[in-house]
This record gives sequence, C-alpha cells and structure tokens, in this order.
Amino acid sequence: MNIAILGFGTVGKGVYEIVKNNGLDYINVSKILKRKGSKMDLPEMVDDFDIILNDDSIDTIVECMGGSDPAFDYVSRAMKKRKNVVTSNKLLVATHYDELMNLSDENDVYFLFEASVGGGIPWIENLSRVSFVDDVTGFKAIFNGTTNYILDKMTNGYVDFDVALKETQDKGFAEADPSSDIDGDDLLYKTIISANVATRKSFSMENVLKFGIRYLTKEDMAYFKKNHLVLKLITTFDRDNNLILVMPELFDDKAYIANVGSNFNYVELYCKTEGRLVFIGPGAGSLPTGHSVVQDLVRIDQKAVVPIYTTEKVVVEYKDFKEKFYVRYDDGEAKVVEGMTVAELKNPKIKFIAKFDL
Amino acid sequence: MNIAILGFGTVGKGVYEIVKNNGLDYINVSKILKRKGSKMDLPEMVDDFDIILNDDSIDTIVECMGGSDPAFDYVSRAMKKRKNVVTSNKLLVATHYDELMNLSDENDVYFLFEASVGGGIPWIENLSRVSFVDDVTGFKAIFNGTTNYILDKMTNGYVDFDVALKETQDKGFAEADPSSDIDGDDLLYKTIISANVATRKSFSMENVLKFGIRYLTKEDMAYFKKNHLVLKLITTFDRDNNLILVMPELFDDKAYIANVGSNFNYVELYCKTEGRLVFIGPGAGSLPTGHSVVQDLVRIDQKAVVPIYTTEKVVVEYKDFKEKFYVRYDDGEAKVVEGMTVAELKNPKIKFIAKFDL
Repeated sequence: MNIAILGFGTVGKGVYEIVKNNGLDYINVSKILKRKGSKMDLPEMVDDFDIILNDDSIDTIVECMGGSDPAFDYVSRAMKKRKNVVTSNKLLVATHYDELMNLSDENDVYFLFEASVGGGIPWIENLSRVSFVDDVTGFKAIFNGTTNYILDKMTNGYVDFDVALKETQDKGFAEADPSSDIDGDDLLYKTIISANVATRKSFSMENVLKFGIRYLTKEDMAYFKKNHLVLKLITTFDRDNNLILVMPELFDDKAYIANVGSNFNYVELYCKTEGRLVFIGPGAGSLPTGHSVVQDLVRIDQKAVVPIYTTEKVVVEYKDFKEKFYVRYDDGEAKVVEGMTVAELKNPKIKFIAKFDL
Repeated sequence: MNIAILGFGTVGKGVYEIVKNNGLDYINVSKILKRKGSKMDLPEMVDDFDIILNDDSIDTIVECMGGSDPAFDYVSRAMKKRKNVVTSNKLLVATHYDELMNLSDENDVYFLFEASVGGGIPWIENLSRVSFVDDVTGFKAIFNGTTNYILDKMTNGYVDFDVALKETQDKGFAEADPSSDIDGDDLLYKTIISANVATRKSFSMENVLKFGIRYLTKEDMAYFKKNHLVLKLITTFDRDNNLILVMPELFDDKAYIANVGSNFNYVELYCKTEGRLVFIGPGAGSLPTGHSVVQDLVRIDQKAVVPIYTTEKVVVEYKDFKEKFYVRYDDGEAKVVEGMTVAELKNPKIKFIAKFDL
C-alpha cells in the first residue's frame, strides 16, 4: 500500500519510524505533507496537499495534523478521491463523526481511528470486536496521559498545579497550550468516539457535563492525601443511563486505578457476557501512538472489518447524582457534599469538583 | 455459518447460550455432540461424531471436550473434511501445534484457539496483531484462574491448601482432579501457545522448568504475609533468552499483580515500539470463555487473518538464575537462597519454591 502522512509531528514521525524500522515492506511512505514552517528535510516531503490528493498511486492518507481545520477538509477530499483515511485526531473524529462515517460508506473506503483514543492501547479494535458479540454496558477510563502525569507529580511532590504542568511540558507530555487536556475536552472527544463505537450510535457533545483540573490546588491535594485518597481525571460511560461524565474522581490510595501513574492510560470495560475487562498501556508518545496508526494500516491491508455505524443520535441526559463530592467554591470554601442536582453541579461558583469513587 | 459443538460442558454451554441469546443469527448451532453418559435433552444433540463429520452442511467445528483423546482425532478428521475448527482446548493446541497448524494450511480451513489461553481476555488476537507490527519481547502472566482463586483464599483466610482447594472446587473454579492446574501443566500449555503466536515459531515443552503449588502450606503463607509479600503462580516468557518459566512468585503486597484476585487473569505484554500493555479479565467461566470461542466464530465469518506459523522449532535453555528464591525442602527446612543453578532448581528434595519479584 502507498500512504501519505499529513503532519510530521510526534505521531507522524512515529508512524514513519515504525514502517521503516520494523520491516513492514508492504507499506510504502510515498509522500509526507510537511508542517508549515518546517524544513523539507526528507525526500518524501511536499508542501501542498493537492500534490497528494492528485497522486492516484496513493491509496491511504494518514492524518496526524490535529485540529479541525484543515484536517476535516483534507480527509473529506481524500475520501471523495477514493483514498482510505487513518487518523489519530480525536477532535476531528468526535466533532465530524457522522459526516466522516458517511463519506467512508459512500466512497467505499476505510476510515479508521484507533490512535484517536487510548494511545497505544488497542482500545477501539477491542471495543468494536466485543460489540459484535456482546452488549457493552459501560466503561470507566483514564484516557488523558497529560493530566495523569500532572496529577502524579502533584500527588508525589506536593507542588502547585503550575509547577507540575511545567514539568509535564518539559517532559514532552503536555502541549504548549494544555487547555484541551486540563479542561477535559480531550477526554470528552475520546469518550464520544468510544461511546459511538460501543453502541453503534452517534452521541452528541451537547449537554455533556465536563470538569477539569485547571483550578486544582496543592491544598486540595494535601486534603486528599491526608484522607488516603488519590485524584484522577476520569471519564465514565454508562449505557443504560446514556450517561457520559468527565470529572476528577477520588479513589482509595490502595485501589489499582489510583496507582496508574506516569502517562499511562487505563480502561475498564463492562459487558453483559464477558464481565469486566481491563486494558492498560502507554497513553501517548511517538512510538505507541504511531503503533496504533500502523495497526490501522495493517487492518486496511488485511481488509479487516470496521466498526459499525448507524445514524441514530443520542443526547445525554442526567438524573440527580447521589454520590459524594468534594467541592471548592470561588471564595475558597471547600466542603464534602452528599448528592447534587445537575443545576447544583453547573453552579458557576464551583472552581473545582471531584466525585468520591469508593 | 453452520456449527457443531463437541462437548457440552462449561464452555460448550456458554457458546450455545451466547449464540442463542445475543442475537447472532448468522451462527446456527446445527448439532451438538453430547458428553458420554449425559442425556439427549436438546434436539441438536447426537452421540456419534461421524454424524457431524459426514454432514456437509456443517462448516465449523467448536471443540470444547478437553483432553487429547478423542479431541485430536476429531478435529484432525474435521479439517481433512474441510471444516474450520475453533477450540478452547489448551492441551490439544500446545501438544499438537505443528500438526494442527499444518492441517489447517493443507486443507485451507481456519484453526483458531482464542479461548485456549486467558479465558475471556482477547489475548491471542491482540498478541497476534501486535506481532504483525512490532517485536514481542516477552510477557508475564497469571493465566490460571484456579490457582489464583486458591491462593486468594489462602492469603485472606489463613487456611490449609486442601481447605482452599475444596472451597475453589465447590465454587466451580477447580476440576475434580486439579493436578493440571496446581502442578502448573495448564500454565505450561498456555505459555507454549502464547510463545508460538508471539514468535511465529514452535516451542518444545521439553526441558521447560515448571513448579506448582501442590505442597504450599499455611506456614509458608504466614511467612509471606509477615513480610508483606503475596504469592501468585506466574508464567514468564522472555524472548531474548528463549526463556519459559512456570513458577510461584512473591510480590510486594501493594503491587497491582499481587491484588489480581478471584479467578481473574492478568497479562503484561512487552514490545519493542509499543512498550508495556496490560490485559485483565475473567480467567474462566462459561460465558467469558464461551465469549472467546464466539469471537473466533465471528473472525471466521469475517474472514479474518489468523496467527502466522512457521515450523522453526525452539527448545528452551536456561542460564543460572541470579534471583532470590524461597525454598522449602522435604525435611521441612525453609530458607531464602540468592541465585540458583538449573541443577539446584531440579533438586528432588525441594517441596516448594517461589521466586522473589520485587
């Protein structure tokens, strides 16, 4: 197969390296669309997408640019030209799911996105396979390596959020603008994609309750530590209740999920006949994420079966929550609250909130 | 697809239930070879394998009888009659790997065995997929739910081995004759199969060092507990050293692997570009194991690609071990030893041995 890689950052470089070094001779990297401002330092590099689009020898596009624009335009035009698309771009997949799945159907090409969720964990593939045989009833996951790394630093080092963020950026595990990670948008995209694959429906992002860790303080963390609790930014999907929730959660410090550190991802999958399955793996990084992209290329080469899609729309709704919450308001007051309504959760005076999961 | 189920015990019943209850209309259970001595209580049941063999409408055999005889004869004859074979029988797959893979090649039929290792964990599929892209460098696993359950009981209850075994049998997690589980043979079969899939070679069972938990005492367990250690029966594969080792291991009681309880299975996979992946799931039981069999049926229906096989033979060899061991001899003396030669490990006076993994 002849591929073109769009975007040559962390993921794109990982794909290139794996294809070249792991003896995958049947995958030929024909062209690379270089990033704006970067040098033409490889013979495969071009600076104009149309060169790739109009090259009929290229059958598959690997999109690792990130963002919606121009990624959506490029992959749409590629599918209309009968090119398969593999992407690691969760924002793209989550926000244009219907259009992209339809384009894939209409043009009879593959649209695969293993690397968009779970880093190096073969999550989408396994979720899709389980859904052929079983009813997925839900999942609970650490799907954001960046915040997991930040929280790990804050748990172990008693440092402020800004210090932990800076260290995480220095390690290459956080973007210069970390908003999408620390405010929970990244997790929201990944959860929408996973819920779509699990149910074969199309979840709306509208209404989804989403809370991040931007305003977490070392005093909050000291309180958790004193009470033998560990904080993780968690996403939950509960199919029976059509519930998607992105929220920091507090676990007993001896629980396994509390000890998934560094930039690892963790997901617990619940199914009717299978029971509980857990997958753990590297949540980011050039080679693990590149590996997931290459797995999609292998699937295309092997003419594998892809996730099933229906146009049935789902908008989440929430009942009142009966759980216990740790809430800190903008006046600095922190308290533990038992049970909250959706309106109470949306109180703009809440600076930081976490759910007890004990 | 038209299938026949051979053996209607725990796994066979699980397969039947999932196919009937989960809406898998494209899988038709045409015939069931009933177990000797059991009643003909379903219309699909027959008591003569030749009826199934000579029914040309049956394209796939699901073998859940266990044991080598007559399973090997039945599945060999089925493949020669151009029927696909799916099996949960680890003894069969491990001891007749070459012959069965060759029969599958020669007759152009599928031979799949997801359910033979890891219970409900989609282990073989994931291992096989990783091996298409990456170099598997090894794995470490709890692959025996029975002994995991027994050890869990002994850790938590300060009871003798016999008492814990009896409770495990009463729960349905151990066979009437538990030898294969408690002496490590079950783990050996599962490791050979996994190493074959990981490397695309064919490992010999000859020479493999294998230690079980038959002679473990509650005094041993009390010593471990006092030292904050937890015992698990572990299998290890190290590709660089062609090492397969089935042996009880001691972990810090806070390590995650130490806290995989009940009849769960756990496997850590190490790969060159992927890094470390962990899979956890139910290690036994009618529905989880049945689910893995049905996943193989779905793969056949989807014409999926199967594990790659070469005839290259591997016989394991051991260097001296540098690790620390807990050893109890037949005179009752127990001691901690640092470093052991292979000859020392084979000392027949050793009643129980465990490796420290700290």
